[in-house]
Amino acid sequence: MKFDMIAFDADDTLWHTEQLYVDVQAQFRALLDQYIDTAALMDALYAVEMRNLNYFGYGVKGFLLSMIETAIRLTDGRVAGRDIQRLIDLGKQMVQADVALLEQAQPAVTALAQTHALMIITKGDLQDQEAKVARSGLGAHFRHVEVVSLKTPGAYAAVLKRHAIPVDRFLMVGNSLKSDVLPVVALGGQAVHVPYALTWAHEVVEDADPSRYHQIDHLGQLPALVAQLEAAE
Amino acid sequence: MKFDMIAFDADDTLWHTEQLYVDVQAQFRALLDQYIDTAALMDALYAVEMRNLNYFGYGVKGFLLSMIETAIRLTDGRVAGRDIQRLIDLGKQMVQADVALLEQAQPAVTALAQTHALMIITKGDLQDQEAKVARSGLGAHFRHVEVVSLKTPGAYAAVLKRHAIPVDRFLMVGNSLKSDVLPVVALGGQAVHVPYALTWAHEVVEDADPSRYHQIDHLGQLPALVAQLEAAE
Repeated sequence: MKFDMIAFDADDTLWHTEQLYVDVQAQFRALLDQYIDTAALMDALYAVEMRNLNYFGYGVKGFLLSMIETAIRLTDGRVAGRDIQRLIDLGKQMVQADVALLEQAQPAVTALAQTHALMIITKGDLQDQEAKVARSGLGAHFRHVEVVSLKTPGAYAAVLKRHAIPVDRFLMVGNSLKSDVLPVVALGGQAVHVPYALTWAHEVVEDADPSRYHQIDHLGQLPALVAQLEAAE
Repeated sequence: MKFDMIAFDADDTLWHTEQLYVDVQAQFRALLDQYIDTAALMDALYAVEMRNLNYFGYGVKGFLLSMIETAIRLTDGRVAGRDIQRLIDLGKQMVQADVALLEQAQPAVTALAQTHALMIITKGDLQDQEAKVARSGLGAHFRHVEVVSLKTPGAYAAVLKRHAIPVDRFLMVGNSLKSDVLPVVALGGQAVHVPYALTWAHEVVEDADPSRYHQIDHLGQLPALVAQLEAAE
């Protein structure tokens, strides 16, 4: 058996992203320190983000709007306009930030592109994700880039249908059990979990059965795992 | 000759959108009236929007961030936090607004779906556009929904390639000469312009050659035009 398509998540699978959010959150906390006790700031931000997902979805723009809303709420509206502008400027820096590839991403993707069709399936803002693929230098290795608003089993099924990929010949690779691994396993596909050092609370799951998916320490181990899976069947 | 695919723009082609932006801008002006002379407000907002396209792209979230930035700049930071929160709440109302179909959209799409493969090609925020397709009640008539970050000839070429549609059997229908008509004509495809009562300044073009595309007054005329184009060749 040979996989017809190997799909990669992008953020924190191919390149660092969560670190950028953590860094910006530290600047957000420093900015609000003049107004309030920031001990509960991150919990408040997370609560606002969760409420706003339904309106604004995933990605930098929704995160930025949630930071602004949290700043206004927690300061009872006292946050100065110039500080809100600083938040907007942080958002602009985020969408222009250098794309820092994970250490093993470049050689793993380059090697697998010699033998397999590859694609990216990622959440987030469309323009931002497309620009990161371009800046990553890896774009030419991927046949398709799919930016989706949710990573549910139904969303994966729609992508597989659109590209006429049989689910039993599809392998998904990503750092999030919730978004990259479990929905694909639920469809009957195979998935590889590559844990990242940081996981956004929203992506944490407690009850995944590790016998239902594969796990590697870093992408450098992926070509050998793919060869092993294809030889086994 | 029969078209393999008839593609529709969505905003102001299938349903009203620009009116929603105009209404929200009127509320934006009323909100800032307590701070500044708002005579030049819309020009200032437009200038900020154009600068921010590169960071935030098209759609409600970028528009909302540009309103906030404009409010801060023009008031020299004096705009109150509660008023910025009101802007964010306007953005939330925009993404939840009822989808008001254009008068002839429903019968035209329903009729053409009997005889042709249909798709939507639209700019904007991914989640927002998908949600509007769902709320429109027309979703089942469209085989694909493509949300793109730009509507350039290259972007259309990529969509045609992805779906294996020959350009000479592709018809694009939309209200924007700049985004829906001219890039498709440049590729060698056919396009139908359906003018909408309002056109965002960014979408205005002055120098389109009307002999290179088709024009109708409303979507109710589209089935007859399609029949006529297919009979002619």
